[in-house]
Amino acid sequence: MSNPEAGRLSEILARSATRRDFLSRASALSLAIPAASAALTSCAPNGEQRADSAAAKRPPAGAAAGSEDSLFHHNSDSRLDSAVLKGGHAPATSATREAAEHAAAAKYHRYDPTLPPLPSGNRLQVHFHSREAPIRVSDDLVVAGWTFEGDIPGPIVHCRVGDTVEFTLTNESDIPHSMDFHAAQIDPKVAFRSVVEGQSVSYTFKPKWAGIFMYHCGTAPVLMHIGSGMYGAIVVSPREPLPAAKEFVLVQGEYYLGETVNGARPFDYQKMLSTVPDFVTFNGRPNQYIREPLRVKVGDRVRFWVGSVGPQHPCNFHVVGEQFDTVYLGAPPGTPIRGVQTFAVPAGGGMCFELLCDVSGEFPFVNHAFGHGQKGAIGILVVE
Amino acid sequence: MSNPEAGRLSEILARSATRRDFLSRASALSLAIPAASAALTSCAPNGEQRADSAAAKRPPAGAAAGSEDSLFHHNSDSRLDSAVLKGGHAPATSATREAAEHAAAAKYHRYDPTLPPLPSGNRLQVHFHSREAPIRVSDDLVVAGWTFEGDIPGPIVHCRVGDTVEFTLTNESDIPHSMDFHAAQIDPKVAFRSVVEGQSVSYTFKPKWAGIFMYHCGTAPVLMHIGSGMYGAIVVSPREPLPAAKEFVLVQGEYYLGETVNGARPFDYQKMLSTVPDFVTFNGRPNQYIREPLRVKVGDRVRFWVGSVGPQHPCNFHVVGEQFDTVYLGAPPGTPIRGVQTFAVPAGGGMCFELLCDVSGEFPFVNHAFGHGQKGAIGILVVE
Amino acid sequence: MSNPEAGRLSEILARSATRRDFLSRASALSLAIPAASAALTSCAPNGEQRADSAAAKRPPAGAAAGSEDSLFHHNSDSRLDSAVLKGGHAPATSATREAAEHAAAAKYHRYDPTLPPLPSGNRLQVHFHSREAPIRVSDDLVVAGWTFEGDIPGPIVHCRVGDTVEFTLTNESDIPHSMDFHAAQIDPKVAFRSVVEGQSVSYTFKPKWAGIFMYHCGTAPVLMHIGSGMYGAIVVSPREPLPAAKEFVLVQGEYYLGETVNGARPFDYQKMLSTVPDFVTFNGRPNQYIREPLRVKVGDRVRFWVGSVGPQHPCNFHVVGEQFDTVYLGAPPGTPIRGVQTFAVPAGGGMCFELLCDVSGEFPFVNHAFGHGQKGAIGILVVE
Repeated sequence: MSNPEAGRLSEILARSATRRDFLSRASALSLAIPAASAALTSCAPNGEQRADSAAAKRPPAGAAAGSEDSLFHHNSDSRLDSAVLKGGHAPATSATREAAEHAAAAKYHRYDPTLPPLPSGNRLQVHFHSREAPIRVSDDLVVAGWTFEGDIPGPIVHCRVGDTVEFTLTNESDIPHSMDFHAAQIDPKVAFRSVVEGQSVSYTFKPKWAGIFMYHCGTAPVLMHIGSGMYGAIVVSPREPLPAAKEFVLVQGEYYLGETVNGARPFDYQKMLSTVPDFVTFNGRPNQYIREPLRVKVGDRVRFWVGSVGPQHPCNFHVVGEQFDTVYLGAPPGTPIRGVQTFAVPAGGGMCFELLCDVSGEFPFVNHAFGHGQKGAIGILVVE
Repeated sequence: MSNPEAGRLSEILARSATRRDFLSRASALSLAIPAASAALTSCAPNGEQRADSAAAKRPPAGAAAGSEDSLFHHNSDSRLDSAVLKGGHAPATSATREAAEHAAAAKYHRYDPTLPPLPSGNRLQVHFHSREAPIRVSDDLVVAGWTFEGDIPGPIVHCRVGDTVEFTLTNESDIPHSMDFHAAQIDPKVAFRSVVEGQSVSYTFKPKWAGIFMYHCGTAPVLMHIGSGMYGAIVVSPREPLPAAKEFVLVQGEYYLGETVNGARPFDYQKMLSTVPDFVTFNGRPNQYIREPLRVKVGDRVRFWVGSVGPQHPCNFHVVGEQFDTVYLGAPPGTPIRGVQTFAVPAGGGMCFELLCDVSGEFPFVNHAFGHGQKGAIGILVVE
Repeated sequence: MSNPEAGRLSEILARSATRRDFLSRASALSLAIPAASAALTSCAPNGEQRADSAAAKRPPAGAAAGSEDSLFHHNSDSRLDSAVLKGGHAPATSATREAAEHAAAAKYHRYDPTLPPLPSGNRLQVHFHSREAPIRVSDDLVVAGWTFEGDIPGPIVHCRVGDTVEFTLTNESDIPHSMDFHAAQIDPKVAFRSVVEGQSVSYTFKPKWAGIFMYHCGTAPVLMHIGSGMYGAIVVSPREPLPAAKEFVLVQGEYYLGETVNGARPFDYQKMLSTVPDFVTFNGRPNQYIREPLRVKVGDRVRFWVGSVGPQHPCNFHVVGEQFDTVYLGAPPGTPIRGVQTFAVPAGGGMCFELLCDVSGEFPFVNHAFGHGQKGAIGILVVE
């Protein structure tokens, strides 16, 4: 059996319009945590061996400190580095051809934060496709996204504790991708393995705990794949329903952007390592819920399922003019914390926040770390 | 009724000595989260409309990435940007004339961290004035502050769950300001609306939960107003008193400073967005409680009410040589956590920490995130 | 009695090969939080007085903002600054002669994360030595370390609640050092005082609470001493044993490195203040447990005792393909939180994470703040 990765590489060489394009593609083909993923095992034994040898010569960590090169260089768990360094220190970005194609035509839409209804039975079939696509996140900004189902975040999944989730990922992108569900207890080497274009990976899991759990592409370097838009949330409701409420899902994500390429701003790996984001968003769009608020009625209980996918920072969730009657740090309905103004949801984590809407008004919900909140993580809850 | 904001603008033009002064004033006049505040509603319908039109053309987010301009530029929810960008990319700071006037004469004083006594009855009247003033925070450093009651932080407020707090803010500053109490459950569009110079806003609230809750100016851009000193704390004691203790209030705040103007260093909005502070303080002054420690007796229980107003970072609160018998993540006395060395109070949040002083000695209390602790968030608790 | 510090200073001048070397030594001799440590009290009354006078003229905080100088300058609680500033703004680093000597010969070894067994009796004698030494943390990287017992982190200490720990630190380094155990409730001015080369300090404590507690050098500037490698962990098990488990200790630490000096990269104080690390490690070595994983059996309960020594950042601890059945935010077995994907351990803090290994596989454990995880805070748990 031949090495499909090698094959892909020549294809890419042939199809890549620019050297930068090539570099970002070539580097993204790496699957860098060898023991952490089954990187192409089912079809690419040669690829697997290459990953191992890359691991053997891994730590080139002695680069000059303080320079941007060193920040980039010491991402030593990824062949992304070597590919890029060979190419002359060019930064890797998400700017593949597909990610920016027809950027001008990309239409803005509000990401619906409403928790979708539960499935009628105890089984849920979810089939996602990974693809590169330009995403318009505001009137004036299109990003070169790597996506699940063509949006950032991917779709909200909703099920109960103990339901069976039958998941399939089909990769429609040149770049290897994978799917890591934080709600699944499963061998990631097999289930979360990367697949190349045209391939699929399937697995089944039964969520054991209630909560909002992140999902994301786990292909190395994970920072690049989360940072380029490959994330979303699954909400697992407890079998004994929580009190009736209007339920919303807010996934905070950071944007680290490079200069516009073909009408879209790519996500920039080197900048991600700096940890100073350009934008911080709820559900992928800066300030989208200022523009088009969430709406509930006086007397409603509101339940926010809040996740932060990072890639780096927490969401200090707060609702102006309100206090949370209950915050669940772990699986609801366990260990409720009462009377909270602000709690930090860590990157890679999720928490459940509840409040009672006693009075009408317009209540901004924010990341109260305002250095980030001011970069787009503000929305409005209208109580009518 | 004419537009008082427009009127103010010409006044400012006439009175501003420098173009920089003008820019910072003009920008600060913005009230940028249109739905999030009742920005001048009672007196300025035109102002309100202008806020809406600003919102409509909001996201100019396509600026070059990585540059300081872009960090500044993409604060797209504020007319601060457009004002400043029109003015040629000058950074906005707190350096108004009043904020730096007579800076050399500003006297240092220790901020008393002692929790003030409870009011005798069930009603508490609080009347704050917002004003610009130079604040000496150490022998060699005066900052150009935007303040409540002429100090950073503003005064500590103390009441019980269920007490009635009758609050009035009178604005004595050229810049619109407002007051957001995290202890209030109330429509922020009305209660937390901005007022211009000479105007007042009043509202009444009954705190529902015990804890330490931040208060701050909520006028947009909120980052600028919190970051320039407009914050403080209200401590709400439970109706059933907690065990007798020596009670202290520590409010952590970050300082992002520009170069000295007229003897005072202004707070710098662009630098706030970088999230790398110059100083991190307890109650507004770097290392003030090293210089003049807190003092208790052997056998005392000490209760620290710790808030972080940020604007960005948590306070990893720790007492050297001690452990917290109890930390309340939510409203005391609910869900106590026992035996804690360090817990992170998120920006925009507050927690209650208790310890028993079994032995005499000198116990430093610190932000154990020492990259910040070392910038001024260290004090001493002397147990005699 | 003469001033031993003054004596040391001339020695250092004589022995220092380079001016940079001198500066880093001279500055490191400072003991800057006067009231926070008994800095040389037992042997150096003059030294103590000097510390006091340094305190009196402390706040030189008015430096130009935004420059690296100012970041450095406003570490106003330390004579490190003045020493270095006098020397012409050179940054202070850990690059003493001993710390880099024979760097090429330093051998890499895996840091064993296994929790060591409990002592047989109720008393535990621990004698640590502080010394400078080159530490090879990967094939290509040697750091100029300041250490306890010649390694980063220092050895894991393990005892029960109520056991008696008899601790002695002997300083074998030119630089004053001290030991701060977060598990001790004791007067830090006496117990955590600094000692100079050849001196020892001893104290005894009985841990009151279960948990993983940081230990670290508390000599000012604390940021420099923690940041240069002087940290480790003590695990205090409850007297009533927790359920049987495979127990591991993971201490997250950040590396802020300067350019190579004599074959070793020193830790850089100025860079620490920037809070953007070069590497983030579990137990001192980037990605060491990818290279040599942790191994358990199907059916095992695994208990991770996770600390973050920072100096600045939390560890958002997560295990890929697993969920934590239990996280103890405080002292186990108190207040367990159930069903958690990720929780943030603050810098200066520690938490206990438990999971049941139901299925075989390879489970990466990560800091899910991937801007940091990608810098080395990733390992593998193999379940066989």
